[in-house]
Amino acid sequence: MTTKQFKRILFGGDYNPEQWPKEVWYKDMQLLTKADINEATINVFSWAQIQPSEERYDFSTLDEIINLLTENHFQIVLATSTGALPAWMANRYPDVTRTDFEGRHHRFGGRHNACPNSPIFRYFGQKLAGELAKHYGHLDNVVCWHISNEYGGQCYCDNCVAAFRVWLKKHYQTLDAVNQAWNTHFWGHTFYEWEEIFPPNDLGDAIGEDNSTIAGLSIDYRRFMSDSILQNFTDERDAIRQFDADTPITTNLMGTFKDLDYFKWAKEMDLVSWDNYPSYNTPYSFTAMSHDLMRGVKGGAPFMLMEQTPSQQNWQPYNSLKRPGQMRSMSYQAMAHGADTIQFFQLRQSRGATEKFHGAVISHADTDNTRVFRETAALGHELNGLGTEILGARTPAKVAIMFDWDNYWALEYASGPTVQLKYVDQIHQYYAAFYRQNVAVDLIPTDLSAKELAKYDLVVAPVLYMIKDGVAANLTSYVKNGGHFLTTFMSGLVDRNDNVFIGGYPGPLRELLGVWVEEFDALPPEKHYQVTFNDQADFTCDMLCDIMHLEGAKALAKYSQGEFYQNTPAVTENDFGQGQAFYVGTQLAAKGLDYLVGQLIDQFGWEHYATSEAVEITRRDQADASYYFIINNGGNTEQVNWTKAGQDLLSKQAVATGTLALDPYAVKLIKVTK
Amino acid sequence: MTTKQFKRILFGGDYNPEQWPKEVWYKDMQLLTKADINEATINVFSWAQIQPSEERYDFSTLDEIINLLTENHFQIVLATSTGALPAWMANRYPDVTRTDFEGRHHRFGGRHNACPNSPIFRYFGQKLAGELAKHYGHLDNVVCWHISNEYGGQCYCDNCVAAFRVWLKKHYQTLDAVNQAWNTHFWGHTFYEWEEIFPPNDLGDAIGEDNSTIAGLSIDYRRFMSDSILQNFTDERDAIRQFDADTPITTNLMGTFKDLDYFKWAKEMDLVSWDNYPSYNTPYSFTAMSHDLMRGVKGGAPFMLMEQTPSQQNWQPYNSLKRPGQMRSMSYQAMAHGADTIQFFQLRQSRGATEKFHGAVISHADTDNTRVFRETAALGHELNGLGTEILGARTPAKVAIMFDWDNYWALEYASGPTVQLKYVDQIHQYYAAFYRQNVAVDLIPTDLSAKELAKYDLVVAPVLYMIKDGVAANLTSYVKNGGHFLTTFMSGLVDRNDNVFIGGYPGPLRELLGVWVEEFDALPPEKHYQVTFNDQADFTCDMLCDIMHLEGAKALAKYSQGEFYQNTPAVTENDFGQGQAFYVGTQLAAKGLDYLVGQLIDQFGWEHYATSEAVEITRRDQADASYYFIINNGGNTEQVNWTKAGQDLLSKQAVATGTLALDPYAVKLIKVTK
Amino acid sequence: MTTKQFKRILFGGDYNPEQWPKEVWYKDMQLLTKADINEATINVFSWAQIQPSEERYDFSTLDEIINLLTENHFQIVLATSTGALPAWMANRYPDVTRTDFEGRHHRFGGRHNACPNSPIFRYFGQKLAGELAKHYGHLDNVVCWHISNEYGGQCYCDNCVAAFRVWLKKHYQTLDAVNQAWNTHFWGHTFYEWEEIFPPNDLGDAIGEDNSTIAGLSIDYRRFMSDSILQNFTDERDAIRQFDADTPITTNLMGTFKDLDYFKWAKEMDLVSWDNYPSYNTPYSFTAMSHDLMRGVKGGAPFMLMEQTPSQQNWQPYNSLKRPGQMRSMSYQAMAHGADTIQFFQLRQSRGATEKFHGAVISHADTDNTRVFRETAALGHELNGLGTEILGARTPAKVAIMFDWDNYWALEYASGPTVQLKYVDQIHQYYAAFYRQNVAVDLIPTDLSAKELAKYDLVVAPVLYMIKDGVAANLTSYVKNGGHFLTTFMSGLVDRNDNVFIGGYPGPLRELLGVWVEEFDALPPEKHYQVTFNDQADFTCDMLCDIMHLEGAKALAKYSQGEFYQNTPAVTENDFGQGQAFYVGTQLAAKGLDYLVGQLIDQFGWEHYATSEAVEITRRDQADASYYFIINNGGNTEQVNWTKAGQDLLSKQAVATGTLALDPYAVKLIKVTK
Repeated sequence: MTTKQFKRILFGGDYNPEQWPKEVWYKDMQLLTKADINEATINVFSWAQIQPSEERYDFSTLDEIINLLTENHFQIVLATSTGALPAWMANRYPDVTRTDFEGRHHRFGGRHNACPNSPIFRYFGQKLAGELAKHYGHLDNVVCWHISNEYGGQCYCDNCVAAFRVWLKKHYQTLDAVNQAWNTHFWGHTFYEWEEIFPPNDLGDAIGEDNSTIAGLSIDYRRFMSDSILQNFTDERDAIRQFDADTPITTNLMGTFKDLDYFKWAKEMDLVSWDNYPSYNTPYSFTAMSHDLMRGVKGGAPFMLMEQTPSQQNWQPYNSLKRPGQMRSMSYQAMAHGADTIQFFQLRQSRGATEKFHGAVISHADTDNTRVFRETAALGHELNGLGTEILGARTPAKVAIMFDWDNYWALEYASGPTVQLKYVDQIHQYYAAFYRQNVAVDLIPTDLSAKELAKYDLVVAPVLYMIKDGVAANLTSYVKNGGHFLTTFMSGLVDRNDNVFIGGYPGPLRELLGVWVEEFDALPPEKHYQVTFNDQADFTCDMLCDIMHLEGAKALAKYSQGEFYQNTPAVTENDFGQGQAFYVGTQLAAKGLDYLVGQLIDQFGWEHYATSEAVEITRRDQADASYYFIINNGGNTEQVNWTKAGQDLLSKQAVATGTLALDPYAVKLIKVTK
Repeated sequence: MTTKQFKRILFGGDYNPEQWPKEVWYKDMQLLTKADINEATINVFSWAQIQPSEERYDFSTLDEIINLLTENHFQIVLATSTGALPAWMANRYPDVTRTDFEGRHHRFGGRHNACPNSPIFRYFGQKLAGELAKHYGHLDNVVCWHISNEYGGQCYCDNCVAAFRVWLKKHYQTLDAVNQAWNTHFWGHTFYEWEEIFPPNDLGDAIGEDNSTIAGLSIDYRRFMSDSILQNFTDERDAIRQFDADTPITTNLMGTFKDLDYFKWAKEMDLVSWDNYPSYNTPYSFTAMSHDLMRGVKGGAPFMLMEQTPSQQNWQPYNSLKRPGQMRSMSYQAMAHGADTIQFFQLRQSRGATEKFHGAVISHADTDNTRVFRETAALGHELNGLGTEILGARTPAKVAIMFDWDNYWALEYASGPTVQLKYVDQIHQYYAAFYRQNVAVDLIPTDLSAKELAKYDLVVAPVLYMIKDGVAANLTSYVKNGGHFLTTFMSGLVDRNDNVFIGGYPGPLRELLGVWVEEFDALPPEKHYQVTFNDQADFTCDMLCDIMHLEGAKALAKYSQGEFYQNTPAVTENDFGQGQAFYVGTQLAAKGLDYLVGQLIDQFGWEHYATSEAVEITRRDQADASYYFIINNGGNTEQVNWTKAGQDLLSKQAVATGTLALDPYAVKLIKVTK
Repeated sequence: MTTKQFKRILFGGDYNPEQWPKEVWYKDMQLLTKADINEATINVFSWAQIQPSEERYDFSTLDEIINLLTENHFQIVLATSTGALPAWMANRYPDVTRTDFEGRHHRFGGRHNACPNSPIFRYFGQKLAGELAKHYGHLDNVVCWHISNEYGGQCYCDNCVAAFRVWLKKHYQTLDAVNQAWNTHFWGHTFYEWEEIFPPNDLGDAIGEDNSTIAGLSIDYRRFMSDSILQNFTDERDAIRQFDADTPITTNLMGTFKDLDYFKWAKEMDLVSWDNYPSYNTPYSFTAMSHDLMRGVKGGAPFMLMEQTPSQQNWQPYNSLKRPGQMRSMSYQAMAHGADTIQFFQLRQSRGATEKFHGAVISHADTDNTRVFRETAALGHELNGLGTEILGARTPAKVAIMFDWDNYWALEYASGPTVQLKYVDQIHQYYAAFYRQNVAVDLIPTDLSAKELAKYDLVVAPVLYMIKDGVAANLTSYVKNGGHFLTTFMSGLVDRNDNVFIGGYPGPLRELLGVWVEEFDALPPEKHYQVTFNDQADFTCDMLCDIMHLEGAKALAKYSQGEFYQNTPAVTENDFGQGQAFYVGTQLAAKGLDYLVGQLIDQFGWEHYATSEAVEITRRDQADASYYFIINNGGNTEQVNWTKAGQDLLSKQAVATGTLALDPYAVKLIKVTK
């Protein structure tokens, strides 16, 4: 299933009329229609209302809402409401709530509050999804199912403990295999019975939330939790499918969110959708990367932008307004990277409770006479005019960056060599270097075959700390056959159980990279060194410095400082088969990465554009045309030197080559026919 | 009842002879008498001693102490000792201790440790108060009852849960009303039975201690806790009144302490008393404001300064000494703002346990040969010489600032727009601007009638976030009849249940203020803008910037920076009826507030004095005379230009008009006959 | 027993072959032998393996390991494995795990995880030690027993509560005595039954981990915990002694580690051993002090350096590499201060779990071709060549600094006067001043007799806050008979129960010091003053300033700033009997301490050397020779002016007087025959 089947750019978002008296509903219909909003995401948090007790379902209000939306020609994304438990359930069946990292069983509160392994929760959750599908699955304008909401979190209750042991048995068969995998002889942790295994929280093997006595155990608990919650998703999905065979089913993801292995999740989802909430100081490149990741988890398929705020957030420390034009530019940035819907949280701003200061299309002022409403409506009209030709367009990337939740978890559980090492930050540093040159990038998993990798000129895998089975072989084969691979310090260190490859770093990548890393030095924050590329270009490096020996590779850069490892290799290149493998043994400052990416652009001749930091140029392709999004993400006027004549689908004007002036937050969407 | 009935300036403080062998008592009597100390506050923490078991009271030691004090002509403030549970009670009746925010029931420790809704604690507490009143209520020199000590804190135990549900039933009658009030349909929180409601701690709807899924619930729990603890107070008060009809009853408050709604408390107290513990870096204006608040909670009545330290604190991070003369100047600062007693914690310094490094009149040196003792004694003599003419004098303020615990709680539970927003800080910014000009200010509650407000030229209500029933009408009527009202950003947003007024900010104040606030922008800490008053005076603003439309008001100041809202109104004035309403839409730096207050002084002609930052001039009035306290709060020599001839009651010298030189920490108390 | 009986410099460390397949063992033997490693510390974390259930012991693997080591001529330090519980024990007997400060009983995880008062743990622990001794105690190459590992931590479970009450009865006999000792009448804490006493954790009288309502209780709980865990040690020691009468028994200590009173512990240990893990920014003087403390707890006896890392740590925030030569220089620094063994954690680097990035002699590269291996082997050869003449050599110090765990605990529980006051930091400031002049220092307990003290020219006792019984008398007698004593602010304040001495600070030291401290002023961090020595030398002081009166002493320095205490004494000297007593009433900056120490060197003529900060010169003595360790601790080339001709035992060359050049991390070990 694809976003194409929506047959329009869905433009709408979360809508909770059940929280309002009915007279408000009619006003909403008028205002939303005026803004060319064509979609409403409903029933996200109504469980307590539609199921007031164990045995009773009451869809009367939901019926009314759906009727009203239908009459007013809205497409509906229908949620299942299981993102927050009803209070009665928590009170009558205490098992349905979670036990936290501190070891405390919760009573009732918040959302994302269900124990994923509670049989009672699972029973009620899938029953509700089935009931909803039975009632509404046949409706034409129910165009998408939205299961639960922003899944995440952990539980450490006794039901989870029991399920974890079952999960372990399934994955390892024997306790011996578990002991082996987790290297439990360390600190005398050998298990003789399954009942001796407890979850890694404060009462067990955790050392705070970010560290663990037995990282293998903690990583497996992460996998188990991601799987457990995914099972909640598939429970409901399967229940829906009993009554509705063909409406796409999704749940809203959250970019680089740590808890869930979205590559694994996306396999179970018909469409990916996600919620984009950058802060005032989030780099533009980080938002772009998050979009690309959300496209990447589903193999490049366009996705739904399920939520963004029209202007203001409420839960960030400093909730600044989106500037005039900025919501529009951010919407097109999403689209540029693969979004085929533009949806908001939410259509009408809440009156009370924790999100009441979260912006909405219809604000507390309850009028269309607001800047936010006007900008939303203008975008609605514009998208309406854009038609559907962009739907399904793909991103043509020759560079891929690997992203992997197992690595994310494992690297951040590692005790040593430095507390500054954060997985997403490392990925983003490389992504940003390509982004600054407007080179298209795909985010990919680590388990692609050499054949799947072959479409890329270059595969970049920063901190590929954990090498799972097959990964090294695939990469080796990919490079041997002409591919190019770049990785960094803290790569090739451990297997899927977090056990180090013995015999010299970077373990199974050593031959491919042609280097042996003997030691890595952690620099404290106040210390940095320099590297020199080609005996001429000096750049700062910090945090970690590998001390390595060339085993076939040649040095691209050497440490020009660094005490006893001065003049040893810092960045290397290895000719391997028909391809090349690069190794970056230290954290290069942005200018160093720019230099490196510049060299690669020279080598591969990728499409790229020199722009100021604020401007991005992003391309999506249909069979017969390319669509270039030229976006000024910032508040200053910018210029771009443009080389491809085409048609701006927004201004409906032809665009010639030459200098383009870009007002603050300006967007051009230039169609270039192939 | 008033402080006048003490017939002297009580000068003394906490005294715990039961912690010492008797030979020490006699030495104390000599030393304290030498310092002209005329009062002792006793029995504050003796519960374990005077009630060694469920059935036995033993007042023998207390009898001895009271006899000794009486023989030595001391007035007695008699505490009830219920500020700390006896260990035997906690051990035998575990319900009497508290369950904390983390969900843990405590065993025994600290003080302020009783669950306010424990029936066992309530039973024993009021029984003890009654027994004490029966024994000592008839004594002439027991001039005041002091119930418990520094009440505060929270409990989340099952007794409190049960009591909370009863409290809710009383306030809301039906669960529907609760669901409505708390907007529980948000995140599907709808309650169908009272038993589904749990307190907002870590196991419930809290999001940390400062945030909440359902702010309405958290605010109500604050109200409930304040009421529950107040009930502990009235339990004991009523028990005392059965045996003692006319001795004033108080408990010691703590200024801007967040936990208790002191306006509600003061209604139940005969006299207000409070404990003043500024840090080395507390602004003088903050201490002044705290005094004014303590006067304000009881409608302007003079109060007792129940505790201050003679010199050093122990529980602050850096416990610096009060400089020579500073204890005296701070005592007179208290008096200037309404204190009619000067009391210390404590008369003799503890030997052991957590407060042993807290200063006292008689220090560990156990002698009168200390600076602290000499300064105390000198003040004792001076106060003795001052007589009683100041007792009961009132503060003549034409400006009032509203302070409200519901707003305090609600504003600080709000998620968004910025984590920097703190209630007391906002109040203090305005207070300090008037203080810098030595303009007298009353701190008042929000529920005064238009008639009660009419005595003020100007009512200032910073961040009047929550508008409870009647408040807007009172303010509107007050202004219509010639009053002047000033409020700020984050005002008029929510009703008493924290639900937003729909239809445009500032809600019920919109017409009065003549502005519509469409948006508010949160600036991160590194960002600030400028506003310009009258096209000429530029001042910095930061944190929050309202974007507003004039609806009858005129702009007093506009943003001269601020990107898209540059040149829009930042500060406005609205002529309304016979009065005016001002709105300050951003956080002005001190100089901006000074400019604004300067304009108001010009407009209203209030009595004011230009002094350096360290000097304050404060007035109290009796029928026939005004008393001016001219205080140098700082360590440098200062000058004041003085315009009212009178008599300095401290130096006993006539004071002519002209320049007055003020030594460090100097005080003049000038009587000007009317 | 002494380190002499090892008859060699043990050179080896922790070795865990049971965590590896056997083929690895044989490689290890080859590599370790190549590095002249002669010792292995084994069986540190094998409890789960050697006792797989309640009734079964399985020493087969351990037998094999010992056989292999024996065949390869290794000396063995044999651990008892009780540093980490087996999972089966935690699961079947939940009492064996700990209840934490938060009040939570733990399931299973980590290490140091046994409740010291669990009868089940105690039973199994001592049974295991006995079994091991029975099996292995007769072996010639088992040269030392190593009980458990890095003992520490606290437990607050019900078994501990019960044991604490027993401990209290033993120490105080009556509850009255407890109430008296803890001054429980404060805040009405009087106990009437033993069952009312609870441990001072979050559910009791703790105020966070660093503060307490009743410091006397918290200090006693610290004593009780140290004693409880010591009892675990003596349990096992006594069990071993039933089967092995003469092999030395130790456990590895941790320098200034707070939890355990190592002076008390050392009395029960045959030899002291310890683990030295400085961070990249630990001052050289701090490491030196830690060594001296470990020598001091056993009255000056040489000790074992049980653990250090060959290069990299893993659990520090920034785990930088030891520079080439630095592991060697740090090994000799240990030896210079009394170490007679050089041992590593560990011989082979772990594959998995939390310490896998902790360095080892054989790294993950699994080869001798690493810098770390080469440096280790070089040191092994060098030590081999050094022979045994250094074994047992003593440190000839004329200066002693008192260190005391009761003071450590008590001072840091004190509420006030400043949160900046940390015990070890205060000790180190004085230690560092002597270290900078290369003056030898002993760390001694506070309970030495005047006769024992008499060997020192000067006894320094920074922040001698708590004066236990006899201490003041001993010091007074020591000075009266010609000794010299120096102490500082925050001294002489409380007795062993943390109750203040009434009558004037510094209490029982007042006569000896000839001063009365009336007040102490805490300066906030942004504030500092100056003191002037002899009207000429000005130095900064901060944090705390005593205000004192001379009572026989004369002022060596006065405050030249300090507002009202300007020109009052800051540092004093009192001639007392045939000796002198010095008092330093404020925190002097390093230059001030250097000046003071310089004056003392002039007065006493101690052996000292002017060196750069990085260089230390340290002496150990045998009967017929002195051994001078000249160590460049830093990475720069240094020079030293050397005045004693001798023989460098490392280079095997004669050393003449004159300028010695020192390469980075260079070491000279010069034997000067007496």
